[in-house]
Amino acid sequence: MRHGGPIRIFMIRKEVCKETEGLMGGKGVVRVYHILEKEELGKAGRLYGRVVLEPGTSIGWHRHKGETEPYYILKGEGTFVDNDGSKTIVTPGDVCLIEDGQYHSIENNSNEPVEFMALVYNLI
Amino acid sequence: MRHGGPIRIFMIRKEVCKETEGLMGGKGVVRVYHILEKEELGKAGRLYGRVVLEPGTSIGWHRHKGETEPYYILKGEGTFVDNDGSKTIVTPGDVCLIEDGQYHSIENNSNEPVEFMALVYNLI
Repeated sequence: MRHGGPIRIFMIRKEVCKETEGLMGGKGVVRVYHILEKEELGKAGRLYGRVVLEPGTSIGWHRHKGETEPYYILKGEGTFVDNDGSKTIVTPGDVCLIEDGQYHSIENNSNEPVEFMALVYNLI
Repeated sequence: MRHGGPIRIFMIRKEVCKETEGLMGGKGVVRVYHILEKEELGKAGRLYGRVVLEPGTSIGWHRHKGETEPYYILKGEGTFVDNDGSKTIVTPGDVCLIEDGQYHSIENNSNEPVEFMALVYNLI
């Protein structure tokens, strides 16, 4: 975490958990464990973290323009909602990709937590 | 995996496992589960994957110039070797960062597998 000085990226530190209710218009409280700060990604991207969806929670349908956000499933059974509205059950090892300008969302309709990696990087 | 056609990044697919012996001069066989292909990251970076180090294996000491590679520990107890040669035991939730031009490596000196995320992105 920053304390006003220049960013120093030579260190070992802990992930930073941020809880958000209604993320992108989704349901419930979602935890994002941030690995990098936006400033540290520079022009490469703006978000890199591990997301935990408890049962019944979701990230709402949202669009990415000039960037993309692959989801990479680590744990549980998620429901990925693709740009065309189609829903697919995704499990550990699955990679969910969208093209520039497309929408997506992800829901946990199961009884166990879902965990996935989210990386928002720029299409440059 | 590509089969000669243009890259299409609108899909759900599985991670792609690649095994390498002596990665960066390290010990034993290391498994990298690739999430994105180099071409898909474009100018943002060149590698995004989950790495599994079985006990006794390691990734050798190597340098990053014009780019960086945070490690994010998911499972187990790894030994992170920093640019100054110092060794630190890292556990789930730890983020290991290096600056432009610095070296690092990671070893599994424990009795359980170590898993971590590796992202090589450009400092642009």
